Amino acid sequence: MTQKKPITVAITGAAGNIAYSLIFRICSGELFGNDQPFNLSLIDIEPALPALEGLVMELQDSNFRLINKTICTTDPFEGFRDADYAILLGSYPRNKNQTRKDLLGKNVSIFKIQGKALSFVAKKTVKVVVVGNPVNTNALVTAKYAENIPKENIVALTRLDMNRSISQLSRKLNKNVSNIKNVFTWGNHSASQFVDLSNGYLLEGSKKTPLTELVEKEWTYGEFQTTNQTRGKAVILKRGRSSAGSAANAVIDLLKSWIYGTETYVSMGVISDNNPYNVPENLIFSFPCTCKNGSWKISKDLKPNDFCKKMIKKNVDELVSERNIAFGLLQD
Amino acid sequence: MTQKKPITVAITGAAGNIAYSLIFRICSGELFGNDQPFNLSLIDIEPALPALEGLVMELQDSNFRLINKTICTTDPFEGFRDADYAILLGSYPRNKNQTRKDLLGKNVSIFKIQGKALSFVAKKTVKVVVVGNPVNTNALVTAKYAENIPKENIVALTRLDMNRSISQLSRKLNKNVSNIKNVFTWGNHSASQFVDLSNGYLLEGSKKTPLTELVEKEWTYGEFQTTNQTRGKAVILKRGRSSAGSAANAVIDLLKSWIYGTETYVSMGVISDNNPYNVPENLIFSFPCTCKNGSWKISKDLKPNDFCKKMIKKNVDELVSERNIAFGLLQD
Ligand SMILES: NC(=O)c1ccc[n+]([C@@H]2O[C@H](COP(=O)([O-])OP(=O)(O)OC[C@H]3O[C@@H](n4cnc5c(N)ncnc54)[C@H](O)[C@@H]3O)[C@@H](O)[C@H]2O)c1
Ligand SMILES: NC(=O)c1ccc[n+]([C@@H]2O[C@H](COP(=O)([O-])OP(=O)(O)OC[C@H]3O[C@@H](n4cnc5c(N)ncnc54)[C@H](O)[C@@H]3O)[C@@H](O)[C@H]2O)c1
Repeated sequence: MTQKKPITVAITGAAGNIAYSLIFRICSGELFGNDQPFNLSLIDIEPALPALEGLVMELQDSNFRLINKTICTTDPFEGFRDADYAILLGSYPRNKNQTRKDLLGKNVSIFKIQGKALSFVAKKTVKVVVVGNPVNTNALVTAKYAENIPKENIVALTRLDMNRSISQLSRKLNKNVSNIKNVFTWGNHSASQFVDLSNGYLLEGSKKTPLTELVEKEWTYGEFQTTNQTRGKAVILKRGRSSAGSAANAVIDLLKSWIYGTETYVSMGVISDNNPYNVPENLIFSFPCTCKNGSWKISKDLKPNDFCKKMIKKNVDELVSERNIAFGLLQD
Repeated sequence: MTQKKPITVAITGAAGNIAYSLIFRICSGELFGNDQPFNLSLIDIEPALPALEGLVMELQDSNFRLINKTICTTDPFEGFRDADYAILLGSYPRNKNQTRKDLLGKNVSIFKIQGKALSFVAKKTVKVVVVGNPVNTNALVTAKYAENIPKENIVALTRLDMNRSISQLSRKLNKNVSNIKNVFTWGNHSASQFVDLSNGYLLEGSKKTPLTELVEKEWTYGEFQTTNQTRGKAVILKRGRSSAGSAANAVIDLLKSWIYGTETYVSMGVISDNNPYNVPENLIFSFPCTCKNGSWKISKDLKPNDFCKKMIKKNVDELVSERNIAFGLLQD
């Protein structure tokens, strides 16, 4: 039946909540296609292994014909072997009473090892999506240690931020989400993120109306931004748990864009080398990107206004400071 | 873009765990197709409304273009309005120290109201999938009160039991799940269920090998049965939570079979009227069914052996007793 050679998909934090929302969707064939078999490589830490085995039982009981082989492991050097895709969900969670430095420290050591492991055992063409927070800096650490893997292959998830902004515009304008194009976020996946709709438009038939003509400036620079920045917390307040289904969905959206291409801009947290927006090199930064033939490209023809430039600068400062702390902790 | 008229999908227990695994998959277009928009009608009880609102926020943030309209309600008479599909996940959970009668009593009143509501406000052609346990009797109560809806339109989920049996055979024979055909369960979704592989075969190319030639009798009537009966508990032991992803997956499998047709037998919990297997009428019983043009049919050409007949009888007795208790409680 399925004649294609299996690909290998490795997922860390595989016993967690986003993974539970993500893996069944991947296994249904939605992401890689109904004729693409795959090996699943599920990675988590020791205490999570029973839950991981339970997940594997449920995957077996779902009769997914596309699954070729499944392994569960705590060792990234085993888990990333021959990976075509690596989705890094697992990270050290933020605790109360924890400094930013402590949090970065815990995560830096996780992503250092994972970067090394990817470098040693994954395919050189592996596409890596980093999701675990603080995601931009975790992705940067991964890229630093994944010496054999092009930095272009490591992308941080900022797609959920973009999706949330389109969700807001859809409600504001009472239009379907698919009518809203070219809205994206700059910078860090944090409260500093800046949502940019100045290049966005509403597409109806062949008619394009600039979003700036449809929404007020005050809303654009006020409520639109703060709602996006606090959306994660708002979901937790209602659900009592953090966003998992929508985060998993954003991972799928990001990978579909990256693999199959895009016609309009999408948010991707990518390496900042060679960008025209005064973002210094060697940061993982959310830019407006387009994708073609499995590669992304930063859109270079945008003209950020002064306010936007200020917000880009704010995000640069924040990420440089995160990088300094993280790389400082790595002196060993 | 999407030109088809929206259909309406109503889901009870929409703030629960199976719903969380199910709804994102439905919204991705996997079940009804990429060109079929729909209205989502999400039904749960009062204390679950905040969680339900949180879910709706996440669905918005997933930018599902196929969603036309979403409502959240506690009122089945509002929630089932014009429903084309109703998926009944919500039920009263089993507590420790609770008698079977208490449990049936709580559920009988839930499914009585939901049956009436379906009858009054849903489309007459609505397809109803009952999932909440005790599922066979809950489905029977629903059918009893859904007077305007053909009993054929109300099906209890026994597909997870079938999927689990195929999962076992796949591991036992070291073959892909898609090679294993015509295995199903008889009777109740309970520890009395009987998995029947006597008509099953392994399909490789065009070669069909009867499963009875590939597995031992002792295993077939021993471990194969008990593993299936206790699989739900085994998952809870590992995960610390009950099966949600695999149950949601079974709902999707069942609906795909029902809507798009099947070539081999699948397990469906259907009304027992007119069956050749000595199951008395007016029970919801898991039978081997085939589907075509949106309708199911009990496969009538099987020859159950004596042991199987005994197991069918055991399931009949159990379901008749459940029915007696449930209908006894309904005298009002
Ligand atoms: N970038 C985004 O837009 C975005 C959105 C939502 C969530 N997140 C982040 O995604 C991450 C996962 O979220 P979740 O809800 O699934 O969390 P979760 O706590 O449910 O799951 C995390 C899993 O990671 C595992 N883990 C921890 N350290 C690990 C390691 N060293 N190797 C492998 N696995 C490890 C844990 O055991 C756990 O099973 C969190 O960091 C969260 O903050 C990011
Ligand atoms: N048939 C099967 O194969 C199968 C498999 C797995 C689970 N189940 C059953 O499915 C049901 C749902 O499982 P879950 O894990 O999602 O449970 P859950 O407890 O996570 O969710 C159940 C939801 O139903 C809601 N609810 C309760 N009474 C309701 C009512 N009268 N109207 C509307 N909503 C109501 C609850 O508030 C809750 O949100 C359970 O009864 C479970 O035993 C059946």
